[in-house]
Amino acid sequence: MVRYPKKTPYPVSQARRYLEPGPIVLVSSQQGTKTNIMTLGWHTVLEFSPSLVGLMISNANHSFELVRKSRECVINLPTTALTDIVVGVGNTSGADIDKFAHFGLTPEAASQVAAPLIRECHANFECRLYDDALVARYNFFIFEVVYAHVAATPKHPQTLHYTGDGVFMVAGKIISRRSQFRPDMLD
Amino acid sequence: MVRYPKKTPYPVSQARRYLEPGPIVLVSSQQGTKTNIMTLGWHTVLEFSPSLVGLMISNANHSFELVRKSRECVINLPTTALTDIVVGVGNTSGADIDKFAHFGLTPEAASQVAAPLIRECHANFECRLYDDALVARYNFFIFEVVYAHVAATPKHPQTLHYTGDGVFMVAGKIISRRSQFRPDMLD
Repeated sequence: MVRYPKKTPYPVSQARRYLEPGPIVLVSSQQGTKTNIMTLGWHTVLEFSPSLVGLMISNANHSFELVRKSRECVINLPTTALTDIVVGVGNTSGADIDKFAHFGLTPEAASQVAAPLIRECHANFECRLYDDALVARYNFFIFEVVYAHVAATPKHPQTLHYTGDGVFMVAGKIISRRSQFRPDMLD
Repeated sequence: MVRYPKKTPYPVSQARRYLEPGPIVLVSSQQGTKTNIMTLGWHTVLEFSPSLVGLMISNANHSFELVRKSRECVINLPTTALTDIVVGVGNTSGADIDKFAHFGLTPEAASQVAAPLIRECHANFECRLYDDALVARYNFFIFEVVYAHVAATPKHPQTLHYTGDGVFMVAGKIISRRSQFRPDMLD
């Protein structure tokens, strides 16, 4: 049975809590009446405020044109509850199927963008294109996270981290070294 | 006791095996006779071949000028054996201390760049600056991995993944979904 994490608004400047550890994400997009979802592992945080993230979305993906033309997307954070769907989404094309329908994922209206959130995910980061300077050369999009939704529990979700070759590392134990940090380094 | 992982040359096009899961890395650099090390979590893979990676190196870091001027660096992959050193390196500045000496890390000659490898790390990726188009605006450096050294064991090292606020997620269990992948998706 699919569960829907109960999410609440979250400070966009803290998107790094969930993205910096390097999880596989599901990127949802919409252009006109067409939606799509892609699985993506090539992303990085770039700035706290504005909350910037960089995503490499290959132009071989059906999502590339949807994102490029709409200049928006949602970065959705799946957990191990969605492992097989993450793999399925990554191994099919939106040119052939409606991924929301095919994989039984629930589109939900976003707050600031037209692209739909994926309700089954632990967190959703609504993004607007901030800089397309490297899109043509590297398919690298710089987005601003303009609104965020995060489930309060579990605090440390069981995210998936891709190593290539069909193999994932699952998020393991949590350790704190907070006491060894300079106060100004504790963002 | 510090151990030295036994490393051998590794295909640069497969750097993603170690970087895509999103680990904290130690970036070593050298300019003239000055070396430095910084702790970094904001990076992404950008391409297989050439093997490109993007690193956000804040210009508030002492390493920024060393990397910008030398146009080289080494991305070193630490494991939990180095947790306290990773934290120490991230909470000190190369303007004040010699980080190799202070933290008892062993510099080792690289193959293709002047910047030293960190011998205690599980893997070392020698990098040359490939594109500085976004350095001025975002402190974002696009590097080409020109040579790689990786320890054969363990196959899945206990990497550290930073969530902010002094808290790390440690790499957990490994799961394969290889049989569900399209053959052409198994890079």
